Amino acid sequence: MKIAFLGPQASFTQLAATQLFPNEELIPQANILDCFTAVENGEVEKAVVPLENSIEGTVSMTLDYLYKTPSIKIEAEAVMPIAHHLMIHPDNFSENIEKIYSHPQALAQSFHFLDSHYKSIQKQDFSSTAAAAKYISENLDRTLAAVANQFAAHLYGLKIINHNIQDFEQNHTRFIVISKIQNPYNNNKLEVLGEKSGLLITLPEDHAGGLHQVLSVFAWRKMNLSKIESRTLKTGLGNYFFFINVVGKWDSVLHENAIEELKSINAGIDFLGSYKEFLLQS
Amino acid sequence: MKIAFLGPQASFTQLAATQLFPNEELIPQANILDCFTAVENGEVEKAVVPLENSIEGTVSMTLDYLYKTPSIKIEAEAVMPIAHHLMIHPDNFSENIEKIYSHPQALAQSFHFLDSHYKSIQKQDFSSTAAAAKYISENLDRTLAAVANQFAAHLYGLKIINHNIQDFEQNHTRFIVISKIQNPYNNNKLEVLGEKSGLLITLPEDHAGGLHQVLSVFAWRKMNLSKIESRTLKTGLGNYFFFINVVGKWDSVLHENAIEELKSINAGIDFLGSYKEFLLQS
Repeated sequence: MKIAFLGPQASFTQLAATQLFPNEELIPQANILDCFTAVENGEVEKAVVPLENSIEGTVSMTLDYLYKTPSIKIEAEAVMPIAHHLMIHPDNFSENIEKIYSHPQALAQSFHFLDSHYKSIQKQDFSSTAAAAKYISENLDRTLAAVANQFAAHLYGLKIINHNIQDFEQNHTRFIVISKIQNPYNNNKLEVLGEKSGLLITLPEDHAGGLHQVLSVFAWRKMNLSKIESRTLKTGLGNYFFFINVVGKWDSVLHENAIEELKSINAGIDFLGSYKEFLLQS
Repeated sequence: MKIAFLGPQASFTQLAATQLFPNEELIPQANILDCFTAVENGEVEKAVVPLENSIEGTVSMTLDYLYKTPSIKIEAEAVMPIAHHLMIHPDNFSENIEKIYSHPQALAQSFHFLDSHYKSIQKQDFSSTAAAAKYISENLDRTLAAVANQFAAHLYGLKIINHNIQDFEQNHTRFIVISKIQNPYNNNKLEVLGEKSGLLITLPEDHAGGLHQVLSVFAWRKMNLSKIESRTLKTGLGNYFFFINVVGKWDSVLHENAIEELKSINAGIDFLGSYKEFLLQS
């Protein structure tokens, strides 16, 4: 089975994809749009893309493409703690460092460590953490270092000299598995954090309390929401759609009645699926 | 007056900052955290940071830092249509191009143009659109091109050979002006799109319908919401805060009563300010 992911090689999304699909053919894509296009065209069966808090791409794009391609559904969500490591060329025996390369957000997320241990060392922005690791591995100058994930260290044969240099321990990135078949993903080797459903809702018009009316549908049924995000429609300023996560196992009576009630108040509904949330290793 | 902005030089955020503060000293910062820190420490009076849809930084960081630094408020919001241009060195008279450099998201946002006009030309990721433009201007190879904004073309003396190559006409980026004084910003040279208030709301506990209860406070007062976004608190999975925009001019009775009612149901409230939304040129 072919699985697309947001690349490059050794990106955080590949680190997620290898845990979700350890035995499948993983195909890197240049951007989030390419991941959706590959699924829609049938070039791949599924794709792994970031949903929240990624340093690799504007993840609001993921919500926009979910809205634009109604044939694409969600099969699973996966949460990975963000972990950055400082790595050098294995031939740099003295561990002397003159310059540190990484994606600007990874450098920012490691600010307190870098500021206290490598304050005077020059930091250089790179297009991705993975590209920075690759550059270090290929450069003849052995005094260069990169901030990247452990997968990149392994792929490019680099030596990690400082583990977990990120600032906030509980910071994490969310990914989703998308496909056209809406066949819930399962994997008994990964810890399950919970179950949820994903919905895209467009309001009939931009009236006061419209969102409140939509949320009433969930509130009186005691359905809890774990995520709500509004996105502007491209048709103009002031028109919105909402991405909503409903907590809990799918109940064919309760949930389907809620969707019927939403339709009856003229809300546009794209049901993205009912799926599990898995915990990944960083 | 000193104004920090999310750099580097010729970033989209600088393009926004120069329109909002044409006569002030603009100081580039390496990341969104540095912009907040500079305001909090008093190194600068204000800062301009992306709030939505930027290709320069994970803008969910902006919401997280607004939450973490309650002393920082919002003075204005500004909307800029995204416009990418293809630019070359002015000495490249033949306009022959062998390689195109830019931020991966800018290349993705210009996909349809690049695919139909420069399909076989190699694309190279760079850490930012501005850095790509600077690289083209300094490189001895005249056959390189960059996808960047008009400000970068001007700053680095590049020639734009294709204007507005981005895919979606209505795509735009939102910025906010932050400060510690909450003194509403005004500028009669910029078009005003509307007025709004910003609120950060934490729910007393993670109970079903909690958000619905909060939104009831706005709904029965017919206060319309133009943006709602949930963000996970760093204290653990399942705890959230919400960023909400209320549409309309500040009304000291209506709005302050709403805030009092929110406090009475034990919601945590950080009122970020009441401010105008301006339209910028791209």
